Amino acid sequence: MKKVAIIMGSDSDLPMVEKAFPVLREYGVPFEAHVFSAHRSPEQVRGFTAKARENGFGVIIAAAGMAAHLAGAVAAQTTLPVIGIPASSSVLDGMDALLATVQMPPGMPVATVSINGAANAALLAVQILAVTDPAIAEQLQAARTAMTEKVLAKDEELQKKLAGESR
Amino acid sequence: MKKVAIIMGSDSDLPMVEKAFPVLREYGVPFEAHVFSAHRSPEQVRGFTAKARENGFGVIIAAAGMAAHLAGAVAAQTTLPVIGIPASSSVLDGMDALLATVQMPPGMPVATVSINGAANAALLAVQILAVTDPAIAEQLQAARTAMTEKVLAKDEELQKKLAGESR
Amino acid sequence: MKKVAIIMGSDSDLPMVEKAFPVLREYGVPFEAHVFSAHRSPEQVRGFTAKARENGFGVIIAAAGMAAHLAGAVAAQTTLPVIGIPASSSVLDGMDALLATVQMPPGMPVATVSINGAANAALLAVQILAVTDPAIAEQLQAARTAMTEKVLAKDEELQKKLAGESR
Amino acid sequence: MKKVAIIMGSDSDLPMVEKAFPVLREYGVPFEAHVFSAHRSPEQVRGFTAKARENGFGVIIAAAGMAAHLAGAVAAQTTLPVIGIPASSSVLDGMDALLATVQMPPGMPVATVSINGAANAALLAVQILAVTDPAIAEQLQAARTAMTEKVLAKDEELQKKLAGESR
Amino acid sequence: MKKVAIIMGSDSDLPMVEKAFPVLREYGVPFEAHVFSAHRSPEQVRGFTAKARENGFGVIIAAAGMAAHLAGAVAAQTTLPVIGIPASSSVLDGMDALLATVQMPPGMPVATVSINGAANAALLAVQILAVTDPAIAEQLQAARTAMTEKVLAKDEELQKKLAGESR
Amino acid sequence: MKKVAIIMGSDSDLPMVEKAFPVLREYGVPFEAHVFSAHRSPEQVRGFTAKARENGFGVIIAAAGMAAHLAGAVAAQTTLPVIGIPASSSVLDGMDALLATVQMPPGMPVATVSINGAANAALLAVQILAVTDPAIAEQLQAARTAMTEKVLAKDEELQKKLAGESR
Amino acid sequence: MKKVAIIMGSDSDLPMVEKAFPVLREYGVPFEAHVFSAHRSPEQVRGFTAKARENGFGVIIAAAGMAAHLAGAVAAQTTLPVIGIPASSSVLDGMDALLATVQMPPGMPVATVSINGAANAALLAVQILAVTDPAIAEQLQAARTAMTEKVLAKDEELQKKLAGESR
Amino acid sequence: MKKVAIIMGSDSDLPMVEKAFPVLREYGVPFEAHVFSAHRSPEQVRGFTAKARENGFGVIIAAAGMAAHLAGAVAAQTTLPVIGIPASSSVLDGMDALLATVQMPPGMPVATVSINGAANAALLAVQILAVTDPAIAEQLQAARTAMTEKVLAKDEELQKKLAGESR
Repeated sequence: MKKVAIIMGSDSDLPMVEKAFPVLREYGVPFEAHVFSAHRSPEQVRGFTAKARENGFGVIIAAAGMAAHLAGAVAAQTTLPVIGIPASSSVLDGMDALLATVQMPPGMPVATVSINGAANAALLAVQILAVTDPAIAEQLQAARTAMTEKVLAKDEELQKKLAGESR
Repeated sequence: MKKVAIIMGSDSDLPMVEKAFPVLREYGVPFEAHVFSAHRSPEQVRGFTAKARENGFGVIIAAAGMAAHLAGAVAAQTTLPVIGIPASSSVLDGMDALLATVQMPPGMPVATVSINGAANAALLAVQILAVTDPAIAEQLQAARTAMTEKVLAKDEELQKKLAGESR
Repeated sequence: MKKVAIIMGSDSDLPMVEKAFPVLREYGVPFEAHVFSAHRSPEQVRGFTAKARENGFGVIIAAAGMAAHLAGAVAAQTTLPVIGIPASSSVLDGMDALLATVQMPPGMPVATVSINGAANAALLAVQILAVTDPAIAEQLQAARTAMTEKVLAKDEELQKKLAGESR
Repeated sequence: MKKVAIIMGSDSDLPMVEKAFPVLREYGVPFEAHVFSAHRSPEQVRGFTAKARENGFGVIIAAAGMAAHLAGAVAAQTTLPVIGIPASSSVLDGMDALLATVQMPPGMPVATVSINGAANAALLAVQILAVTDPAIAEQLQAARTAMTEKVLAKDEELQKKLAGESR
Repeated sequence: MKKVAIIMGSDSDLPMVEKAFPVLREYGVPFEAHVFSAHRSPEQVRGFTAKARENGFGVIIAAAGMAAHLAGAVAAQTTLPVIGIPASSSVLDGMDALLATVQMPPGMPVATVSINGAANAALLAVQILAVTDPAIAEQLQAARTAMTEKVLAKDEELQKKLAGESR
Repeated sequence: MKKVAIIMGSDSDLPMVEKAFPVLREYGVPFEAHVFSAHRSPEQVRGFTAKARENGFGVIIAAAGMAAHLAGAVAAQTTLPVIGIPASSSVLDGMDALLATVQMPPGMPVATVSINGAANAALLAVQILAVTDPAIAEQLQAARTAMTEKVLAKDEELQKKLAGESR
Repeated sequence: MKKVAIIMGSDSDLPMVEKAFPVLREYGVPFEAHVFSAHRSPEQVRGFTAKARENGFGVIIAAAGMAAHLAGAVAAQTTLPVIGIPASSSVLDGMDALLATVQMPPGMPVATVSINGAANAALLAVQILAVTDPAIAEQLQAARTAMTEKVLAKDEELQKKLAGESR
Repeated sequence: MKKVAIIMGSDSDLPMVEKAFPVLREYGVPFEAHVFSAHRSPEQVRGFTAKARENGFGVIIAAAGMAAHLAGAVAAQTTLPVIGIPASSSVLDGMDALLATVQMPPGMPVATVSINGAANAALLAVQILAVTDPAIAEQLQAARTAMTEKVLAKDEELQKKLAGESR
């Protein structure tokens, strides 16, 4: 199976980014995580990314805050799908990172998820790998069903609570 | 090969959305395009999406403006990767559509591209299909190289123009 | 009397949403509250909403945060008036939810109240039911008068405080 | 049947506001439209609004731009449901009017629709009147069905267009 | 001397608004402060404001948050200069109140100060009264000089601190 | 009578600023208008402003766009009331100028009016001069009444138009 | 004398960027201009930038729109001062480019000028070169004086116009 | 060597601004820091700035919050390069200061760094001085290399952590 690479621009993003790890483990998707910076270690970004496809990666996730260039810098070095996670690491609550990640020019898409959306980024990576992998696709569908059931359970809980209150 | 579905919330979005078509044709990716509305024809969105995987689709692109719910409504009915295009069809220049598309809750990612970024959405769909298709991957790489050469040509043109001016 | 339905996209919204409950109880308006998600339990949203009118509901209130699609998804399944409460559950302080709730396309209005405005949503629902119910209309007017008197009392308190200070 | 009042803060808003008129006429809902300003003719706003319920009105729609106080000023004088239309009449594209209309304090809801959303405001008014009027409710449902069919027709049109292109 | 009226929309604004009091006292400007709400006690706003000039007031300061209509409602009832203080009492940090206060339509100015700028509002009121009162004008100039000296003292302090550090 | 000074940061602002002139003329308020720039001719700003009070000015209006420092630079040199007009002369539609004008620090108020609100700035200046000038105060009241009548006339016109349509 | 490099992300930015050229020519500063893209020709950006200092450049100006990464990508490859010009080439009027250019992380400054501020970028480059070049410094001062005189002339013109009007 | 001047609008900005000091000390760049306010001590700003070049300064850094005029006021008095630091000292999180600092009019650039970016401002000042100072240029390059190594070390640390987890 193709691997997923997760690159973060700073180790200070780790507490947010690591929410991606259990999602990938749940689906048995092998992954590597790296601290590479578009600005402070650009050679590493380029070196890693340019060989990502031949090294067995299928998707690259990049997380960065402020003037978040990491996902774009990765996209410039590969034609693999690149998923961008804007991080809310500045006083502007991630609006800067969102615009710097999503507003990519023609020819260079970055699949942007919500601000701090590391779990969703991982899930999107799994969905991409599942396009041609029926086993994962089935597992995704099962998880979806479980998610629905969890919401139904929450609703039942609320009904009990409200019934208790109105007594 | 898996097909790509392109759904737009209104036929008024067609002039923007149809910039996706030549990109998909360039890579020989079969696609369908539909006018389905999350609000005005929700059964069609659901019916089409729920069977999209078994009907041979690999990626769904959804474009909508204002309180752009279409990509999210599609994502709720499939575990295929869903690409969202925020449309600048309101007085708020697409900022409403961008936030309504990208800020998805946990468990339900939408791969959001730039406002009006139909060509990039198509390219991202191709990149997703190329993960396990070396032939398309090669074609993507060739197009990337051609894109670089086009920029180099633009630079040469500018050098000539500037040389002319300074004479 | 018609009932009011209150739907929230996540049980994490309950502490905000439950400020609607005492308002409805004050006016003797029967209500149900549910945790249904536009994305995670769309069948429940649809099933509940499509039968809401025949099941005796007169107004539906929907509360959600981030790319808040819930009110719109409800509006797509009923012609009852739908009231939307944008929740400030993301790093963007509810601006995302506000735009995703209020900027609905033609033919599909959502009566949007302020961010986290659960009490106001309930009051608006009561006002809607009071259009053809003179008893509730009178009660609303009485509450309005009491509200004014409360402000007058606050002003008197301030006068005393200032008189004390200037002595 | 209860009447609907439409108040606009300036006659310059008429071209936007008058999109509400055919919607109300379609449903046979009697209405009055007025140019009353929260700032320039506050007595008229108050005089008209305070007697609106006893004069047979069921809903009041208020449209204004910039620091849009009209809907709030109306809400302060009645317990009828008040619908606010933010107008994009300033250089800020209606964002000022949206916030000035929707962010109402506790006890004073304004049912806010999208910027320039006059047709939706009218439709919401009809939905409110239909809560206890099964005939209008049926008519609303029929219009909804027709709207869906119109979208389906647009999709068919697109299929023909695409079929023509690919020949 | 003319008096200054300070009106706040809610007693919860008092901790912010009362920073205006010492400024007015410093200049010996008589003032009244009131809790009057544009929405919850509009008669009081109107009654007080309409007679403000004949009751000896020269300036009215109005402070409110969210869809801050108070300053505009006051301006609609008087031709005295009205100073607006946007309060940061909502999740939007006062941006809603700022736009709802400053973006007044032609014919109805509100002299808007910074978000939560109660001290500045009071100082502006004093400046207005000083236009035809040379004694206050002199006092303002003296305070300005003192303010400059205070900044100079801060700079001297910093020089000492830096000299200590570099030793 | 005290004079009003109108300073604009660039002669390109004149078409917007000159809407202040007829307002001041209507009330017989003498005024001077100048093109002085906080950045390009700071000595002129300072020289003019520092002597403004002794030269018979009662109010200074300052209009500027972008990083609009003019009103603040004027406020730093006088204790006369300073009115700021944010100009929409940049691609950001005046939001930059609004924040750069209104968000003044403690001790240095600028009475900010709406973006491009030159007529309102002039009217505010007249209101300030009228605080101690009963004749202008009466004239302001008369103009207010006329303004109300104009709105009433607009409403009558609309009634005729609607009556014509419904025939 | 050190040279200035001007890099633009797309030749479509040329009409905006070329306003930098006459400024540099006025001061006799040699410059090169290039179309290099952070995403489409990253090798050119890197190759050019990494050798910029040894090739005699003293300052690099980078102009780009949308998710404007160019200035940051340049800054990552040189320790020369880098000036960023955010371009208003998207529907968001350059707010995306401004945040993507200015919000750089620690260790990697970009000297950002106003949106579309090509002339100012050039002038800043000249100011930087003038730090150790008294001749240019003198020329800058002379230009500053001329700029002031131009504003004074505009003021005189306005005085004549107003004198003519009041006759 | 030329000196760097750091001016802050208020001593409350010192905890943010003083992050510039160790950077300048690291490169042996002599500096002065001052508390001067564009509004409260404008003579000091002008007096200091107008003589800055002849007093041996090469760069001026100015930090201010809210309607941040300081950098612009400095730029108006010198042709030295001026670096602006927007401070997040208001409820608007520095967005007001950013726009008030960066959106300077033609002829008056301010080299703006990120909100609260004091360390980057200092580094930019060093880069400017290094344009004609090969020794500092080398030192900058060495620091850049060290910064890259620090990122690489962080990545190694992460690899160990992940290896530990997966055991």
